[in-house]
Amino acid sequence: MIEIRPEPKRPPRTSGLRTLLALAVATITLGSAGTALAVQSGFFADKPEGCVAPDRSLQMYAVELPKDPSTNQIRLGYGLTPQTASYPGPTMEMIEGECLEITLHNQVPEATLAQLRTDPNHPLGVSLHVHGVKYTQTSDGTVHSGSYVASGQSRKYTWYAKPRNSKTGSPGTAGYWWYHDHVVGGAHGTQGLSSGLFGGLVVRRQGDPRPDRTYVSVFGDRQSINLRRGAEADTCDAVNPQPGPTCLVAKVGERVEFIVVGIGNDMHTFHLHGHAWADTRTGLVAGDNKALIDSIPVIDNKTLGPGDSFGFQIVAGDAVGPGHWMLHCHMQFHSDLGMATTLHILDESGQMPPHTAHGPAQVNGPAAGSGATSAPPAGGSTAAGAPAHAGHQPAGS
Amino acid sequence: MIEIRPEPKRPPRTSGLRTLLALAVATITLGSAGTALAVQSGFFADKPEGCVAPDRSLQMYAVELPKDPSTNQIRLGYGLTPQTASYPGPTMEMIEGECLEITLHNQVPEATLAQLRTDPNHPLGVSLHVHGVKYTQTSDGTVHSGSYVASGQSRKYTWYAKPRNSKTGSPGTAGYWWYHDHVVGGAHGTQGLSSGLFGGLVVRRQGDPRPDRTYVSVFGDRQSINLRRGAEADTCDAVNPQPGPTCLVAKVGERVEFIVVGIGNDMHTFHLHGHAWADTRTGLVAGDNKALIDSIPVIDNKTLGPGDSFGFQIVAGDAVGPGHWMLHCHMQFHSDLGMATTLHILDESGQMPPHTAHGPAQVNGPAAGSGATSAPPAGGSTAAGAPAHAGHQPAGS
Amino acid sequence: MIEIRPEPKRPPRTSGLRTLLALAVATITLGSAGTALAVQSGFFADKPEGCVAPDRSLQMYAVELPKDPSTNQIRLGYGLTPQTASYPGPTMEMIEGECLEITLHNQVPEATLAQLRTDPNHPLGVSLHVHGVKYTQTSDGTVHSGSYVASGQSRKYTWYAKPRNSKTGSPGTAGYWWYHDHVVGGAHGTQGLSSGLFGGLVVRRQGDPRPDRTYVSVFGDRQSINLRRGAEADTCDAVNPQPGPTCLVAKVGERVEFIVVGIGNDMHTFHLHGHAWADTRTGLVAGDNKALIDSIPVIDNKTLGPGDSFGFQIVAGDAVGPGHWMLHCHMQFHSDLGMATTLHILDESGQMPPHTAHGPAQVNGPAAGSGATSAPPAGGSTAAGAPAHAGHQPAGS
Repeated sequence: MIEIRPEPKRPPRTSGLRTLLALAVATITLGSAGTALAVQSGFFADKPEGCVAPDRSLQMYAVELPKDPSTNQIRLGYGLTPQTASYPGPTMEMIEGECLEITLHNQVPEATLAQLRTDPNHPLGVSLHVHGVKYTQTSDGTVHSGSYVASGQSRKYTWYAKPRNSKTGSPGTAGYWWYHDHVVGGAHGTQGLSSGLFGGLVVRRQGDPRPDRTYVSVFGDRQSINLRRGAEADTCDAVNPQPGPTCLVAKVGERVEFIVVGIGNDMHTFHLHGHAWADTRTGLVAGDNKALIDSIPVIDNKTLGPGDSFGFQIVAGDAVGPGHWMLHCHMQFHSDLGMATTLHILDESGQMPPHTAHGPAQVNGPAAGSGATSAPPAGGSTAAGAPAHAGHQPAGS
Repeated sequence: MIEIRPEPKRPPRTSGLRTLLALAVATITLGSAGTALAVQSGFFADKPEGCVAPDRSLQMYAVELPKDPSTNQIRLGYGLTPQTASYPGPTMEMIEGECLEITLHNQVPEATLAQLRTDPNHPLGVSLHVHGVKYTQTSDGTVHSGSYVASGQSRKYTWYAKPRNSKTGSPGTAGYWWYHDHVVGGAHGTQGLSSGLFGGLVVRRQGDPRPDRTYVSVFGDRQSINLRRGAEADTCDAVNPQPGPTCLVAKVGERVEFIVVGIGNDMHTFHLHGHAWADTRTGLVAGDNKALIDSIPVIDNKTLGPGDSFGFQIVAGDAVGPGHWMLHCHMQFHSDLGMATTLHILDESGQMPPHTAHGPAQVNGPAAGSGATSAPPAGGSTAAGAPAHAGHQPAGS
Repeated sequence: MIEIRPEPKRPPRTSGLRTLLALAVATITLGSAGTALAVQSGFFADKPEGCVAPDRSLQMYAVELPKDPSTNQIRLGYGLTPQTASYPGPTMEMIEGECLEITLHNQVPEATLAQLRTDPNHPLGVSLHVHGVKYTQTSDGTVHSGSYVASGQSRKYTWYAKPRNSKTGSPGTAGYWWYHDHVVGGAHGTQGLSSGLFGGLVVRRQGDPRPDRTYVSVFGDRQSINLRRGAEADTCDAVNPQPGPTCLVAKVGERVEFIVVGIGNDMHTFHLHGHAWADTRTGLVAGDNKALIDSIPVIDNKTLGPGDSFGFQIVAGDAVGPGHWMLHCHMQFHSDLGMATTLHILDESGQMPPHTAHGPAQVNGPAAGSGATSAPPAGGSTAAGAPAHAGHQPAGS
């Protein structure tokens, strides 16, 4: 018996694709003379071409975190362990040529996922969709490919950091990327993204300089940096600042790396005081080819749309020295509403130098720095700001 | 008798220019002792410097098409014949060094053009304004230069794909560009654009790789891709998909070219699943200069403002294989409202491989692909997705 | 006695930083056993590393200008003298390796600054914050660093155009930048910016081609170019156009430089008719490396967010000849509302050639150019459009 299941109601967005797939259901039902669900043979490859076997594997957990204290919004996070889940999730690092297998465990309660969807026909699940590196349809993280994970379940995703193919001119995958859910709430994962299911990814090329620390800045809706704004975006302890998503700190001379990502519905521009970078893959200009060096724009402000990602390395305090260097969106009403944080650059000994303001004497003004010498915070240089290296064994090394 | 015609009322935008031109009217009236209209000698050159004679010529028709079925909006289109007019219009292709003469025939009824203007003093006409290549004021396609066409009339436009001048450093014109009306409705052609009068243009350089097929993606207002969204943006037949503006299909290994254009009033970001490209003129990285290759960012998501155009070539399914690869704006509310389509990549034999979803068993979920093996659509590789080569005889070939 | 001043109320944006600084106040109060204001020793360096002594020095004045005639808004301007203050301010020019000392004199009445702030605790002052070049915290121009100037006071700022460091890959500072207030109205200088306290800066590299004239186009809110729109953005006299911020004019063959800056809250796209430029540091493509030349995109439309700046050089009328070449935002409603001006390119003799329109006969249409031969305006090529060279003596020249 030929039985075509009634199409559930869905937004018009995927209708063309739905037509294809609905027809596919009919066809396979015809062909297999059974229910579509019986077919589980999986003819899309599990791994991209070039990845024979994973070079390493990771466990990734999607969990529910405490609600945002300011807005009471649901917060989700990815973590290499359930206990360390955060938003942004762990910063991933790969090297060109490497193939990575990630097992995603969805520990977000089904009831939470149900709260985040508006369409009762939309499936409840969490996924991993990644930018830049290679994956087959089975690791796409989308609804139509079925590559997502129900609550309490697990699923393997394979990412391949394909190198450049000099024959076809097909570029390598080295760059600053990101990963995110593509399923929570709707077919584009809009609710997953706005709840915290995103993280940074850097793919390096052999010979790339390694940073001393890496920070991820995700610019999003509600004038947020990493879903926080204002005081919540910069929680550095003045005496003993611990590097992390809400405390950007470095010592003069350290090589600091930023991974910058746009999410949501708004345009932003990323601006950093005192530092600039080349508008290249790494923020640096390699070699000594004068025509190349002369061609490359150097910038300190970059337009950032949703889905965009870029990154760069700077030498902290290069020529400018230590200080409280602002990092903000240059859309004026965004920064005025709190879309700003600070890169605190300490001196070589890990102290913020005592300093005095040179402005007009401020008896009672808000320029708290006026006439004040700062406390010497101890410069922590620990793991919070560094990429996740857990189990990292790049292919060929 | 010296007679200066009264200036008609116009928006303030062009007032400075208007002053210049109004004064010009007075001067010529003085000089010729007659009416301004009698002067037809044309002292602006008709052809850009470097173009002695056109290398080829085309006929282009601007016609009224059936109204948009969803919105009942007026639709206009350009076509190489009146019968083949469409939105976007025909994809134009030139090669550096080539000079192209286009005769534009305005077959849009004057009553339709009158409906599209709000200012009764604005002229009724259609024009061709092109980005990137060279043209004189007489081919500018603007109101102030008079380079537009009244209903029922024709006019010649000359485009010159100027090569690079190594002496002055003046760049060549190879690149991904577009053309559009600049007159319908107002001095910036806003109504012409929103009705459909636009198309893609690629200018190649000698030695550039040729694509197997070219698709144009115009991102515009109302969350539209090529003025459609959702189901209307992807009308592929599952069994026999025919490549065209609303059916993006290719076989694994084919060289697919995208021309991406922004129109209207909104920012967008163009994102393609499973594929990335170098942020260069062609999307490829030529040669083997390591410093150059290392400098170039590779991206899979690019910010796109109105008037922007870029393009790239990819090898379909490179490393990732066949599948239904999403192409969407990454502004979340845009994609959620239907600003998404799919690049369907078939296997080498032109079939979509049978596939099964690996997600959780979905008895009645919207993931129609879950547990379904797709039908094998025949891979059409015909002309609809290819640039307009009609009469194409590049200079020097 | 240990006395910590109560924190004044401030917007949440700087709270993290405020915590650090508030603690700093406590610490120094402890350490010096006196008032914080007594500490004036200044342990942040005054000059960036690499700048031993300024190569030249300038006086800069911030003054109040007549209110905007259309909107009655307050207008402020920077000037090399109080009499020449304007918006945008003087175009600054540096060469890599040069160190510049600028003394900013705040002549804006305190009452005016008070009108522009909404938070009574925000300090009244004006500052100089610059993009791209190097400065220490004492020249940051921010509130928290105290590097601003009260009405009637003066303060020195030091900018260093650091060259590239080939050892670290740290890029040079050559590029198209801008400077602006960071204090008026709020901690991000939003009111200073919207009132006119901004200007362009170009940093050249040894061997860069010099332009014949430089124009600054600041795209901002309310569909403004340099805070004007429509007729106010183009005030060229038809007979004797004088180059300046509101009159963009050049002769065919002249090397014209644009510095393009985004301010405010909106995205824009900068489009110029008839001309394109390479998307490089200078708009040119140097050398003869084919792979490099082939990689570089050429554009005539560029997305521009607040804080972004770019620039380019073009040869006026290159291949396209003289004419009234439109320059506008390609966001359609922006250009329709007046975000458009014109680059008037005269022939070699400084005349606009007599011309006639080739469009349909327009008896009474708004296309004033139709059938009209233009008056020959005298081509002024004077200083208004050129960068401020006052006292310019680049280091090493």
